[in-house]
Amino acid sequence: MSDLEIRRAVRADIPAVVAMLADDPLGAQRESPEDLIPYERALDRLAADPNQHLMVAVRDGRTVGTLQLTVIPGLSRRGSTRSVIEGVRVHADVRGSGLGTRLIEWAIEESRRQGCQLVQLTSDSARTGAHRFYERLGFTGSHIGFKLQL
Amino acid sequence: MSDLEIRRAVRADIPAVVAMLADDPLGAQRESPEDLIPYERALDRLAADPNQHLMVAVRDGRTVGTLQLTVIPGLSRRGSTRSVIEGVRVHADVRGSGLGTRLIEWAIEESRRQGCQLVQLTSDSARTGAHRFYERLGFTGSHIGFKLQL
Repeated sequence: MSDLEIRRAVRADIPAVVAMLADDPLGAQRESPEDLIPYERALDRLAADPNQHLMVAVRDGRTVGTLQLTVIPGLSRRGSTRSVIEGVRVHADVRGSGLGTRLIEWAIEESRRQGCQLVQLTSDSARTGAHRFYERLGFTGSHIGFKLQL
Repeated sequence: MSDLEIRRAVRADIPAVVAMLADDPLGAQRESPEDLIPYERALDRLAADPNQHLMVAVRDGRTVGTLQLTVIPGLSRRGSTRSVIEGVRVHADVRGSGLGTRLIEWAIEESRRQGCQLVQLTSDSARTGAHRFYERLGFTGSHIGFKLQL
């Protein structure tokens, strides 16, 4: 893992990131790797927001992992700031190498650095392997995650 | 419900909002209504962020409900923007009056207005009444919500 770099995503990372989002039983129906324009627009919007951190993991020049960290100030819990992790993906070729752990550990460390008191994420109930992964990293599956498609 | 106004929270709303956050079996241990300074700092931070909407519901001059809506751009789901609802509270005196529904409907409508394709929230597994409430409003409890205290 000595060559791993975790850095902000740039436009040149988009094809690799979208390919990872699409290479997934749930993501396959939701992504459009043949049309990257909506992703480029979204990246511009993310880059303009100081509370957004869209990151990639790069090893030997290849973009092999990604996650998005959002910092959310709030009133509850004595004016606590929390962070939310979304869109965690690791390239199929490097799964089992500890890269997912490195990405989540990066997100936890960055959340601490930004003064967050809580890190949270939701994981589809069908992703039971992911649930064990987050529990091993110290997370507690204490909540139900509700979604409404608009 | 004719006199209800849903508007952005201002500093004068903080005591009422914090009292609602604290008047809750889970919130009671987490809030400090006797020291409002951390809440005032958090409100300043929220007010400076265009993706943050800390709202209050006001009826007959009383602040009787609150929620926080956060707009989160992202790459996944073809560059979708989603929104996250946090900190939903309704004053004990007015529970059962439909105010919670009005607040969530406001959040859904505002999310649509901002171009979100998804609204999401997490609810503690112990809040079974809240789960039925969100399901009635069209949400699906399809995810596990993981939290890590820092």
